[in-house]
Amino acid sequence: MSVSTQTSARLIGQLSTIANRNGLIDLADRLQTLWRWIEDELNSFEDELTRFPSGSSRIEEAAHHLLDMGGKHLRPLCLAVAAKSGSGFDSRGRNLAMAVEFVHSATLLHDDVIDMGETRRGHSTSRVIYGNAASIYAGDWLLVQALMKVQSAGIDGLMDRMLIIINDMVHAESLQLDNRGRINASFEDYFSVVDGKTAALFRWALYAGGRVGGLSDNHCDSLERYGQHLGIAFQAVDDLLDVDGDAQVTGKALFTDLREGKMTYPLLVALERDPDLQAPVLECAEKPPEQPLPAKALQAVLSGLHRTGAIEARRDFAAQHSSDARAAIADLPSDEGKNALCTIAEATTFRRN
Amino acid sequence: MSVSTQTSARLIGQLSTIANRNGLIDLADRLQTLWRWIEDELNSFEDELTRFPSGSSRIEEAAHHLLDMGGKHLRPLCLAVAAKSGSGFDSRGRNLAMAVEFVHSATLLHDDVIDMGETRRGHSTSRVIYGNAASIYAGDWLLVQALMKVQSAGIDGLMDRMLIIINDMVHAESLQLDNRGRINASFEDYFSVVDGKTAALFRWALYAGGRVGGLSDNHCDSLERYGQHLGIAFQAVDDLLDVDGDAQVTGKALFTDLREGKMTYPLLVALERDPDLQAPVLECAEKPPEQPLPAKALQAVLSGLHRTGAIEARRDFAAQHSSDARAAIADLPSDEGKNALCTIAEATTFRRN
Repeated sequence: MSVSTQTSARLIGQLSTIANRNGLIDLADRLQTLWRWIEDELNSFEDELTRFPSGSSRIEEAAHHLLDMGGKHLRPLCLAVAAKSGSGFDSRGRNLAMAVEFVHSATLLHDDVIDMGETRRGHSTSRVIYGNAASIYAGDWLLVQALMKVQSAGIDGLMDRMLIIINDMVHAESLQLDNRGRINASFEDYFSVVDGKTAALFRWALYAGGRVGGLSDNHCDSLERYGQHLGIAFQAVDDLLDVDGDAQVTGKALFTDLREGKMTYPLLVALERDPDLQAPVLECAEKPPEQPLPAKALQAVLSGLHRTGAIEARRDFAAQHSSDARAAIADLPSDEGKNALCTIAEATTFRRN
Repeated sequence: MSVSTQTSARLIGQLSTIANRNGLIDLADRLQTLWRWIEDELNSFEDELTRFPSGSSRIEEAAHHLLDMGGKHLRPLCLAVAAKSGSGFDSRGRNLAMAVEFVHSATLLHDDVIDMGETRRGHSTSRVIYGNAASIYAGDWLLVQALMKVQSAGIDGLMDRMLIIINDMVHAESLQLDNRGRINASFEDYFSVVDGKTAALFRWALYAGGRVGGLSDNHCDSLERYGQHLGIAFQAVDDLLDVDGDAQVTGKALFTDLREGKMTYPLLVALERDPDLQAPVLECAEKPPEQPLPAKALQAVLSGLHRTGAIEARRDFAAQHSSDARAAIADLPSDEGKNALCTIAEATTFRRN
């Protein structure tokens, strides 16, 4: 079994372990049921991802370096479940699942160049191994490959929606760039960034899955709403992991967002509740990314996040969106599909990487 | 009249002046005829380009900075002429002309980040003013805007072809990257780079123009072949201007390609004819781009290019492809269109920027 055929299995396995450790035996069981239900489809997708033509050029190698690290494949998993809730996850579905993974990977390649990222998923980033130039072109290449896959699926309207989603993603990156280092960024801007950077592609994945499965317009819209809430919950957990995670498990250093001058929800809440935190947050945000964070300021921010209840607030926020996601698909025709998506939404709030 | 409504007019004006100076009175006259024939269409395109929605985000400003500098708009000009050779250059044609200019501009934005380019068209590059991050995202944004325009034109097959073209362009960039600094690059690799980096988008522009104008498949294929040869001729002149142009007119320093470790056709020919040039060429190619070229080596390369006849060979090569371009469209149904395209192909070999 190659690295990339293990990733969804690993994600589900990790989530099960965490659920068991937290005494959530029922959730752990449901994760196993979900896995048995979708295993064949996901393996077929991951096999195809492994076989994806790899030339000898530096950009293809740079792209494959990232793809082969094995992401969580949560977006393809959602797409496959949505499709199987209808008529099934066929070859068109696999193409669309590849597209969604490629778009996600393209943004990571460009982000790592922009943020001068050194490690991702516990490995050196593509830009460290193949250089910034190859990483920029590799991102462009994956974007085009993604659109070719969408085009080849030949499902009406999916290309238009994908272009709008990519446009939203780029605008969110731009807004985040404009706000970089500004600790007085608004909650409104923060939510716009989350909507474009994370929720948009989840929306598309769920909607596209519903379309591949031949579901009705209403059900596809419900799936899209589920994707929106799941994406926000997913990002909320990401924000938490950045300030309260285990670097050994997440594969990236703590406070990476703050080091890059990006305000996350817990930081915004903490600042709102205790304005005295402005000085140490600003001190951290103004450090160039390559320099270590000042220990005293970092400690002040960390204890402030706990003292003000900002971390708890973020946990509640993730739980609320997980719940909203589950509510959105109440009328889905497939019980197995509905259960699978509810399990994913619930487990997402417990993930540790 | 804004900057960008002058650009095609300026290109034609400059070409006419050069033709007159070289005693090519007939060519100068034909350029004026071409301009009168296509002026309204080009103005309508350039007006629309000026009005193109500009938000206040840094990426949109970075993209507009490049667009507003005023490129030559040669690709949109070709597309408009091809369309007018059929039923006309309508709003769909304007969308496609915008698309072709956006794709071209997107590659320039990414290239300038990768090559650390300081000036373009005589102005500071977007990355100098708005930063590398904004330039990378601005390129991504323009690419998506281009594809949205292609999609909205709704002409069968154009999206598929555009995706293939962008894929070719990225692969050509990758090949150029792999060969950077290798002075023993093959002619075969060089032609692959020219084909993908330059000829591909010209091919698409001419083909798309023919399709907008409702021309037959045969005529669209002829236009595509014209685009292929015109693109090669255009690149041949670019190579010449880099080693034998006037920096005041081209807006970029001489020997920029060599400084960036890129082998151009004249250099490859000179090296083939006089292997002793390897040492000074290598010395120049190995200098980091931000350091000045060593004067003695530069002088040796420059005189070698003239002594070996490499510059003359490149001029002949451009003339041959200009001639092949004209031959490809011999059966085009519109005499005005045919004359216009022949004039463009002929004048391209005389351009000075």
